[in-house]
This record gives sequence, C-alpha cells and structure tokens, in this order.
Amino acid sequence: MTETNRQYLLKSRPAGMVGAEHFEFTESPAPAPGEGELLVRNLFISLDPAMRGWLNEGKSYVPPVGIGEVMRAMSVARVVASNHPKFAEGDVVSGIFGVQDYAVSDGKGVVKVDPNLAPLPRYLGTLGMPGMTAYFGLLDIGKPEAGQTVVVSGATGAVGQVVGQVAKIKGCRVVGIAGGPEKCRHAVDSLGYDACIDYKSEDVKKALRTHCPDGVDVYFDNVGGEILDAVLTRLAMHARIVICGAISQYNSTAVEGPKNYMSLLVNRASMTGMVVFDYAKRYGEAVNDLATWLGNGDMVSQEHVIDGLDQFPDALLKLFSGENFGKLVLKVAD
Amino acid sequence: MTETNRQYLLKSRPAGMVGAEHFEFTESPAPAPGEGELLVRNLFISLDPAMRGWLNEGKSYVPPVGIGEVMRAMSVARVVASNHPKFAEGDVVSGIFGVQDYAVSDGKGVVKVDPNLAPLPRYLGTLGMPGMTAYFGLLDIGKPEAGQTVVVSGATGAVGQVVGQVAKIKGCRVVGIAGGPEKCRHAVDSLGYDACIDYKSEDVKKALRTHCPDGVDVYFDNVGGEILDAVLTRLAMHARIVICGAISQYNSTAVEGPKNYMSLLVNRASMTGMVVFDYAKRYGEAVNDLATWLGNGDMVSQEHVIDGLDQFPDALLKLFSGENFGKLVLKVAD
Repeated sequence: MTETNRQYLLKSRPAGMVGAEHFEFTESPAPAPGEGELLVRNLFISLDPAMRGWLNEGKSYVPPVGIGEVMRAMSVARVVASNHPKFAEGDVVSGIFGVQDYAVSDGKGVVKVDPNLAPLPRYLGTLGMPGMTAYFGLLDIGKPEAGQTVVVSGATGAVGQVVGQVAKIKGCRVVGIAGGPEKCRHAVDSLGYDACIDYKSEDVKKALRTHCPDGVDVYFDNVGGEILDAVLTRLAMHARIVICGAISQYNSTAVEGPKNYMSLLVNRASMTGMVVFDYAKRYGEAVNDLATWLGNGDMVSQEHVIDGLDQFPDALLKLFSGENFGKLVLKVAD
Repeated sequence: MTETNRQYLLKSRPAGMVGAEHFEFTESPAPAPGEGELLVRNLFISLDPAMRGWLNEGKSYVPPVGIGEVMRAMSVARVVASNHPKFAEGDVVSGIFGVQDYAVSDGKGVVKVDPNLAPLPRYLGTLGMPGMTAYFGLLDIGKPEAGQTVVVSGATGAVGQVVGQVAKIKGCRVVGIAGGPEKCRHAVDSLGYDACIDYKSEDVKKALRTHCPDGVDVYFDNVGGEILDAVLTRLAMHARIVICGAISQYNSTAVEGPKNYMSLLVNRASMTGMVVFDYAKRYGEAVNDLATWLGNGDMVSQEHVIDGLDQFPDALLKLFSGENFGKLVLKVAD
C-alpha cells in the first residue's frame, strides 16, 4: 500500500517577509527507494532561521532552494524501506529530508541517531546543527577565557541556549539578550546566565553598561541590526564578535549594516563569520562534550515542539516574530 | 628676541564637515622651555584623516582635542633650545607638536630623525605613522600570502601607497581603488599595482569582478562606505578585512554601516580594526624594512607638500575631497 506524501514546495521567492503564500502544499504518493537508496518517514522537522536565507537567489554558503522544489529542512526520520547497505528498516536517522512526510535518499549526509540517549527533537537542536554551531562558534571563533564577559543574543534560542551554557561552563560572565520577561527569566533561572536583557522593554545600550561593567569580550551575534550596534558600543579591547546569524535582517529588503563598526578599530576588535559545516570533521568532539554536560546536569536543553506538518508556514513565522521558546521543531509522525 | 608663534586652536566641534570656521588662528610670543624641556620650531606638519576623529567628543583610541587647545598634529621640527639631556639645539626631531610654529615638549614621544637619510616629509609618511600603519596592518592583520589578491582603497594615499607596494613585495596580486585617472595611472605605473579602479568613473563592484577573478583575500580599508560594501561582495573564502580608516564617513553625521557584512559569514571572513600605536615596540622592524626597500628602489614614496602654516584649514579639507596626491604635509619653515 502506498502512503500519501504531503509536501511543501517553494512557489515563489519572498521579497521581504516570508509567508504561507510562498509555499505550495501538495499531496502525492510516497516515492519508492531505488537501488542503493533508502526511504524515510519524517518524524521531526527542524525549523531554522537559516531557512529564510535558502529562499533568496544568489550566492551563499549553500545554493538556494529552487522554485518548485521541496522546501529544504533537516529532520529526524525513521527508515521505512532500505536498499542501502548501511541502513535498515526501523533505523532512526537524521538528514536533510525536506518539509514532507517521506523522502528518498542515497544515504549521503544521513547519520543514525539513538532514540534511547536523548529525545529525538534534541538531535535537531543541542545535539544537532544548532549545538555544533554554538560550540564551534563560541570556542573556535569567540575564544572566551575564564573571567571574560560573553554576550549572546537570541539567548534562549536553539543556538543561544547552548552558547550561554558552554560559556558558563568555561568560567565566563554571561549576559543574554532575549525578547520578553519569560525568556529572560528562563535564561537566568534555568540556563544560568548572570543576567539577561529584555530587548523588548529595556534600553539595550544602557543595560549593557550595567551588566558588562568591564566591556564585552565575546559577542555571539544571532540577530544583527540594532542589537549588534548596541553591543558595538560596549566592546572591550581585543573583543571578538562571532557572526552566526542576523535574524532581524533576514526578512528585510534593505539590510541595515552595523553603523558602529568603527568600534572595531577603536577597540582593536574583530568580527568573524562562521558556517558550521566547516567543522563537520570535529562534530564528534562537540557531541561528546554536549552529551556529557546534558547527562551530568551542567546543561539543559529546551525544545519547542509544534504538532503537524500542515503547521509549517505558521511555525516558520514564529521564528521571525520570536514566538518560539528554545529549539523549534515540527512533529509530523510518532 | 622672542619669535611669534602662530597657532590654530580648536574653536568648536564640527557636526558634519570640518572647515576653517572650527579653528581660531592666533599669534602670540613663542614659549620658552622650562627645566627638562625643549623648544622646537616646526618644519613640516602632518595632515592626517585621523585628525577629523580627534575633533569629536567621546571615547576613542586617543582623547579628543579640547576646545581652545592647539590642534593636535604630528610634525618634524628643529630643536631651537633645549634643557633636556637627550636633545640639543639643531637636532631634527619628530613628535606631536601641534599646528603651530613653536612647541615646548618634555621630550616624551619625541624621536630624532636623520635629515640626510630621507627628505623630511617622508618621516611623516612612509617612514612615519602612515608607513607603520600600512606595514603592521597589512602584514599582522591582513596576513597576505604570495599569490593572494590584496585590494587597497585610498591606494595612492599616505597609507595606501605603502600597503600596495609591500603587498607586491610579498608576491601578491594587488588591486588599488583611487579617485581619478591620474592617481590610478600613478598606482599602476609608479607603485606597481596590477590594476587600479577609479571609483569616480567606474562601477567598483563590476571592476572588482574583472580585476579579482579569484576574489579578494585581503582588503585594506581606508575609506568605508560604499567601497567597503562593494568589496564585501567579492570576498574570497577566509578573507581578512583590515579596518584602518573610513575617510568617507568621518564628516558624516550618520555613519553608514556595511550593509553587506553578512558576506563575512558566507565567506568565513573577518573584519579587524587596528591602531598603529599598539605596534610601537616594533616600529624599528618596519622602518628597517621600509628604508631598505626605499633605498634599493623596490618602493617609492610620494609626498604632497603645501606651503604655509596659514594653509592649514584648506589643506585639511583636501584630504576629505581627495585632492591630495600622496602623503599630505604642510611646510611651515625651511
């Protein structure tokens, strides 16, 4: 019996804010795996700010999603049929399987995950790309030293929550920036931040002066825009800014550059971009550390699960309005 | 007999473009050196883009010039009287002696220069702060490797001309950006640039595509603004941007941030600020290399000398309109 495959295809490229109108929902029979291929059934689909970038034409770190193609997404899935020597029916795997129920894969980039070690959504968050991004971005580019001040925007998001907790583990003073009192409370009470600035109700520049009396040694930027500009006014000498994302700018037709970038000169500071794929050979290192810290209680991980593939466009928007609380995933099957 | 000391004092802080109206010209008797002091007679006064920054209130890498104070400037001067054990009448020295005929100094930061080794204005340019800035900014921050592409804005200016030539000596492909056909010709014919883009008549983005087919590995930025944004579109992977200055923005009331800064992420690139004073202990290294290259003909140095202390406000403006050709200095005495 062939199952129905629900899919979200890219219909048109958004100029400005992405919305449901840019996707086409279709239903068709699930495909069959060919020679050397496997068929997977998606269980949890990852929703990431980076998805917005994949919709834009032009050169980036990955090619854009093509018009008419299934929307690209990472997911955790169950192997339902396999002609691939490395995978068997029943295996749980992660890979880039797209926003759909079923996907055929040649096995490239597909890795097995252990459902007994952690809740499955975590393999898309703290133990997945966001966790890897946080770990290598903070430690390899940010190079925080014990006693230094680390500031993280998107402080309770998929990446930010890991950055903040790893920085605490490394002995830093850690100040988060997040939207709303609930997230800020979570940052301090559950994630162990020394302070968290609510950018929706506080003057960020002023709050940074209060909470970072010795300046900011490492700024892990997930948001760009005005918050990046505010942090630039508080840099310590030789500060390192890690450019991981700029979610405030992803849906803008006119990106705002950091007006205060000459603070880099005054403070002999640097701003460096990173893409997690460059660290692929070292993911094991990060997974090992993160799993250990999760296991011994030095770290917690918050996932925000929304039920139903058909919630995809609405759920994606939650990322950009800041409505998600922790790593956002779509549950599409049990 | 007491000589007259002409001085330019800071009268008010410019908001926007600096002009003659922000300075007060005064005449008074030359001061006398006290115990342990020396009196110098300025010969050549350095005009630098950084001067504009010194007029602004607020934290920077040096305190601002105070209202009513003599305008700060580097210069080469002759010692006319000395109660200081290290300096004697007739010595030629460089130091921060200000925009005036005579200055009294306690000897701090004053160094002797040899008038027989190089023309005196060169001690304010290639063998002075601009040369040091170019040398350490390019080599220590830019870290160019032979065969890589280096782009320099302000390509024929005091700093740019040294950056370009040192990059050529290090085996790089070097592309300049300068204003006007005369400067571009000079860059290629006299300074040895592989190409020079005239930003006044060419589409810089397009020209960078032509002249930097493999992307830009090192960008030495003296100008900021639109040119920085254009170069950001052409970065090679792991490119290094050296933020040395932003002359296009110094007289703006609203600084334009680099809109294309997310290219740092896509290309895993960095943008790092530098201030030459950090390298003070290593100036000898740079002077030695630069003097050797000047001596053996591997490097040339262009100075633009304007005659007369009373030309100060007009001459300063030439920097911002790009009318200077090489290192700009004011000759104030023989």
